Parts: sequence; structure tokens; C-alpha cells
Amino acid sequence: MPSIALLHASQLVTLAGPPRARRGKELSELGIISDGAFVAAGGKIIHVGKSTEIEKLCDGETEVIDARGCIVLPGFVDAHTHLVFAGNRLDDFEARARGETYEQIAKRGGGIQTTVRATRAASEDELCALAKRRASWFLRNGTTMVEAKSGYGLTLEDELKILRVIQRVGKETPLETVPTFLGAHAVPAEFREDRAGYISLIIEEMLPRIARERLAEYCDIFCERDYFDVEDVRRILTAAKQHELKLRMHVDQLTNGGGAKLAAELGATTADHLEQTAADGISALAKANIQPVLLPGSVYALGSKKYPDARAMIDAGLAVILATDFNPGSSPSPSMPMMLSLAVTQMRMSPAEAVAAATVNAAASLNRVDEIGSLEVGKLANFAICDCEDYRELAYWFGISLVRDVFVRGERV
Amino acid sequence: MPSIALLHASQLVTLAGPPRARRGKELSELGIISDGAFVAAGGKIIHVGKSTEIEKLCDGETEVIDARGCIVLPGFVDAHTHLVFAGNRLDDFEARARGETYEQIAKRGGGIQTTVRATRAASEDELCALAKRRASWFLRNGTTMVEAKSGYGLTLEDELKILRVIQRVGKETPLETVPTFLGAHAVPAEFREDRAGYISLIIEEMLPRIARERLAEYCDIFCERDYFDVEDVRRILTAAKQHELKLRMHVDQLTNGGGAKLAAELGATTADHLEQTAADGISALAKANIQPVLLPGSVYALGSKKYPDARAMIDAGLAVILATDFNPGSSPSPSMPMMLSLAVTQMRMSPAEAVAAATVNAAASLNRVDEIGSLEVGKLANFAICDCEDYRELAYWFGISLVRDVFVRGERV
Repeated sequence: MPSIALLHASQLVTLAGPPRARRGKELSELGIISDGAFVAAGGKIIHVGKSTEIEKLCDGETEVIDARGCIVLPGFVDAHTHLVFAGNRLDDFEARARGETYEQIAKRGGGIQTTVRATRAASEDELCALAKRRASWFLRNGTTMVEAKSGYGLTLEDELKILRVIQRVGKETPLETVPTFLGAHAVPAEFREDRAGYISLIIEEMLPRIARERLAEYCDIFCERDYFDVEDVRRILTAAKQHELKLRMHVDQLTNGGGAKLAAELGATTADHLEQTAADGISALAKANIQPVLLPGSVYALGSKKYPDARAMIDAGLAVILATDFNPGSSPSPSMPMMLSLAVTQMRMSPAEAVAAATVNAAASLNRVDEIGSLEVGKLANFAICDCEDYRELAYWFGISLVRDVFVRGERV
Repeated sequence: MPSIALLHASQLVTLAGPPRARRGKELSELGIISDGAFVAAGGKIIHVGKSTEIEKLCDGETEVIDARGCIVLPGFVDAHTHLVFAGNRLDDFEARARGETYEQIAKRGGGIQTTVRATRAASEDELCALAKRRASWFLRNGTTMVEAKSGYGLTLEDELKILRVIQRVGKETPLETVPTFLGAHAVPAEFREDRAGYISLIIEEMLPRIARERLAEYCDIFCERDYFDVEDVRRILTAAKQHELKLRMHVDQLTNGGGAKLAAELGATTADHLEQTAADGISALAKANIQPVLLPGSVYALGSKKYPDARAMIDAGLAVILATDFNPGSSPSPSMPMMLSLAVTQMRMSPAEAVAAATVNAAASLNRVDEIGSLEVGKLANFAICDCEDYRELAYWFGISLVRDVFVRGERV
């Protein structure tokens, strides 16, 4: 693979250095190089610096990309998505506009169960075609890696089918995927009277098989009233750990059920949502050094006013993450720039904090920070070229994408 | 100009018929034709119907556009924008994230005054280049006509300069523009101690000159505490009417100053913003048959929780309009799909109500409903082809654009 040189970025937003945490100041340090440049070879970055220095390293073989008038930053890392599902939830969407709540819709058999029915009915190839279309949306909006969860199958075979699709998207498209098993997304309709039976199915059949086939790196659970309670969570996630899966957890989204503290107790890698988490939960996360994954898209799309308390988490020294929560029910958006906008306008994060939360911090939570999340020597040349001259514009202009070109491993997508 | 035929739209969203009002039911009637089609010649629609019928009208000369798998709707009409300005307001944007309010920022000389300084310093050609870049954003997101206001000049020459740029964008790009004079956007710094002097300048010099040069169709004013009070508004708008300008008014955005009632008294065409308007203001609008222009982008971007009461306005029989309020301070978004999303998720409008508010109702308020706003015989072939099969998806997937192709007067943009 010949080398490429990216030259003359108005701002090369490197995010060099470790994940951002411990101090608010660090969270906003982006390592920006003006008139910045880098060279990549074999898909990896081999030099980073000012354009005047980097230009000297180019020869006739080098493919030069002129980024004049643009900013360049690492591809976004979206650390919480539900990428694979069939159907949509347009009817629920209209019902919410008429005033029904997410919980009311779920209780009458809409919500997640609608998507479960459609996803079970779809073949692996059908699901893969749908997921690939969405992969193109992610890429077009600057995201080069997504964490992707199962959880719309809720039978052994259907969960395996979804996890295989996640793997295929990662292999067959430029979008890199990190798989998470979320069999405990909801209790499926056929187990409504036998919740213990479904938990046994997860622990005795799903987890061993998924671990054996190496179809997931993480195990997740929806810890919420009417879904899985504290004792269910302890049992399922303890089993997951025995299979060497690391933990991500949906906690405190609709009610404060002590989920943040439970995540701390169980040593999860991330605690996600946290809309209802209070000060004691935040302290517990800080003490256990757990990364909060904030999902403003679902707060927005559900028409709620209660965003997670990002400022308190940053002040507590946490390495916060922003992700889309891409899913058909509560957050139908694949756009990380939209999440930056929500973070700044609704959660009072600074634009710099938001960018760090969407790149290097997210990569750390996926155990990929040696490879991605920043533009540094030795890391993959995964980056986005955006049609603006100041990184803050990514969060400022909203509802549109300024992303002009996206590269994965040094190759244009 | 040869004829074009658009065939096989999954949904041809015609919006046929008059502007939507008086009954909630009518506001949601979109006149959808499944497997819909039309023929246009000379830039105008000459037949509309099912694909099977329309296909028979095509001959070898007809350029066929296959819209299979896509919806097609009239180009969005954005009835409230501040298209022409120099600079940006990234510093204000960061300051708001740190907790400063829009009003605090304005008081220390930020806000509108920042943009006024930058806009005065820019030449007409510089402003035109900036506005043309933004015109490409509007078009790419499906908007084919914008109302555009002056108001960042606040001297005779600078206001004329902006209005000439609005005219040039309309002539030199495919985006059609309707000009509004907003000299009363703010009292400029040099008149801080002589507000009466500035009002005289507007009435005695700006309005006569702008009317004579036919540079505006509407006159607008920012009716708000610390900007222009009820008496100022009466004087300025009465003068505007004498020059045969119709009225659009910024009212009740930050405080309820009785602006809606004043708009009714003065016979304005539209009353815009209305975030703080209460029931009596809505009744006054309904009695006077004034169209409310709702601007959820600025509520969102300012981090406010208080959206205008769209449901009460619809229930009162008003022909509501959605617009972007595109401007560098409070709503840096040119995307009408984003406004549809905000309308449904934050204001509980139905997706259908939102689409009508963004097309035919907006066209009516700009006195262009005989030409645009719906896909009917005799109207211009201004339309967007979107990569989805159900019109509700335009509001559902947020932060991204599903717009695939845009046509103005039958020609691809």
C-alpha cells in the first residue's frame, strides 16, 4: 500500500495523549496543530506535524490529500449503538407525538417487542443488507468505529444471527464494529410469565455459546423497572464475567434504580444512559473509575427534558463518552455531529469536551485506544475531513453534516 | 426545455389543495399518491397521477427520473431565515455552554452586535460568496425557497448591501429568495444613546429607499424588551405599510410582551417565534387570521425548554408554519428535516402536520402559493427526492439528510 500524506488541515485535531479525564481542563485539550499534516503507510500513521515539515517527507509515490480550508479529526468512535434490527418504529414515533410515553407504548406491546418480531422474521442476509445501509450513514457522518449490540432477537438463534451480522458489517464494510451481547434487553413476550426461565436461557445457553464462538467482547443489560432488576443483573453479569466478557450496562435511564452503583459494584467498563443518576451514583462511578456513556439522542427523541448531568460527571473526574444510542425506538440518529450539538446546547459540555468524548474517550472504553481515537504515530489512519475551519463548527451548525471525506486505514471510504 | 417525467415515487407527497388550517385534520392531509408520478415541461408541472397513467404520456424526448424506493415532496419553503451575514458566533456558542444567557451575551456587546460589526466590514461580494455557500446547504437539505432578512447592517448602505445580496442569491443560484427588510433588528451601538434617532433613520431614509428600489417585499421587526417596544413597532410598521411592504414580526421570543396581539392589530402576514405567547395571544392571531411561524431551532440551540405551543395554535385553527430561523446566533441550522424532527419530538406536531407547515403553509405566507408549496398542475417543478419510503422518516431519522436529489423549475440542482 503506497503512503498517503494529508496536508494543510486548517486544524489537525490530533487528540494526542491518553483518554481525557480527572480534570476538566484535560478533557478539553485537543492537541490541535494548525496547518497540520501527517503521513500514513500501510494504513497507519507514521509522522504527524506541521505541513512544512511533513511536505519534506513526501516523494513521487506519495498520494497527497489537500485539506486546505478544512479541519481533520480522528474518525468518531460511537460506543453505544443498536445497529442491527429490522423494521422501524414510525408508528411509535407518531404515538409519542400524540402524547403516549415510551413506557406506555412498551406496555401495550409496542416498543422493543415490535422490533423483536420484525428482527426474528428477517433472515441474516436481510438484516445484513439493512445494517450495511446504516453503516454507510455512520461513515458519511464521520464515524469509523461503532460498538454494536444484539438484543432484538431474544432467542439463542436470533441473538447469534444478529451477532454474526455485526461481525459481517465489520468485515464487509469499512465501518469497524465491536460486538456486545445484549440478550437481556427485554424479557420476550413468550417468557412474560416465566422471567426466570428467560434468565436461565441467557445464562445456560446463550452466554456459553456466544463466548465459545467469540461473537461478543462485551455483555450488556437493560437494568430498569419492568425489565431486569438488581438481582437479575447480578446473576446475568456475574455469569458473563465467568465467560470473560467485559461489561457495559444500561442504567438509570427512565428511573433511578441504583444502576450506577451496581455498575460500580460489578466493575463494568461503562455505565450508559445515567439520565436519572444522582450525586451518589456519580461518586460511585468515580470511585470505581467507570466511564459514563452519555446518550443525549434518546433524551431528545423521547421528548424528555432530563439530560444526564454531564457537568457533574466531568467535575467528578470521569472520562465521559458521547454516543448515539442509534436504535429505531428512542434514538434514530447515526450522527455523532448531532450528538456534539446536543452535548453543547443541552448538557453544557464545551465543544472540546464533546469532541474528546466522541473520539479518544470512546476508543478507550472499547479497549481500542492503542489503535484509534487519536491521530498519533502508530495508530490507524481513520479520519474525517470536514468542510469548516474551526472544530467547534462541528457542534455549532446542526442538523447537517460538514463531513466531506472519510478514510479508514488510510483508504477513502 | 424538454419535458421530464418523475416515475414510481413510493409516496408522491403532493400537498395538493389550499394551505392547511382551520381543522387539525386538514393540517395532516398530505395528498399522497403511492407509486406516484408527474410530468413537467418548461419548469412547470403539467400532469400528476399514478405511474401507470403518467408513463403513457412519456415519449422518446422525455427525460425519465426513476424514484423507485424514494419519496418525493415539494421543495421545502423556509419562511424565516437570516441568510446573509459575515463571521460566526462560535465564541457566544461556547459562552452559552459555560452558562451565559443570550441576553447576557448581548448586553456585553456580543450577540447581534458581533455579527453587525463583521457584516459591515464585509464587501457585497464577500457576503455574496458566504451566502452562496449557505444556499448550497439549504438546497442539499431539500429547501428550494427561503425568505431572507436583512438586519445585520443597521446603516442605510449596509442594509441595502444585504438586500442586494439576497436578490443576487435568488438570481445566481437555484435557491429562490424572498427579501424582507429587518432594519429594526437591533439598535446599533452608535445609536445606543439615541434610539429615536435610529428609528427616524429607518422611517425617513431606509424604508423609502428600499421601497423605491424594490429590494424588499416584507418589513420585519424584533419586538422585544431592550430592542423595540410596542410604540416603536407601531411607528415603524405603520410607515412600512405606507410603502406597501407587508409585515412579518419577531414577537414573544424571550418575554411575552404582547407581541402576538400587536401583530394582530397591525395586520401582519406572520407572527414569528411565539415561544412565550399565551392563550390570549393565540386567540388574537386566530381572529386576525395571521400565520404563526414556529422556529424550534432557536429554542433548541439556545438550550431553552420552552417551545411555542404548537398544539394550541393548531387547535385554534391557525395555518402554522415551521422555519429554521437560520442565523449565526440562535439557530445555526439550514435544515428543514431537522425542524421536522424538533416539531414532532419537542412540540408534539404529527409528522404530517410538520410537512404541511414546511411546504404549502409556508408558501402561502410568502404569497407564492400559486407557484410552489405543492406538486400540482400549474405549479413549478420544485421538488426533493428522498431516500426513504415513508414521509414520516424525514422527521424520524434525525441529524442526517435523506435528501438524494433536488430539482428547481424542473432542473436538477
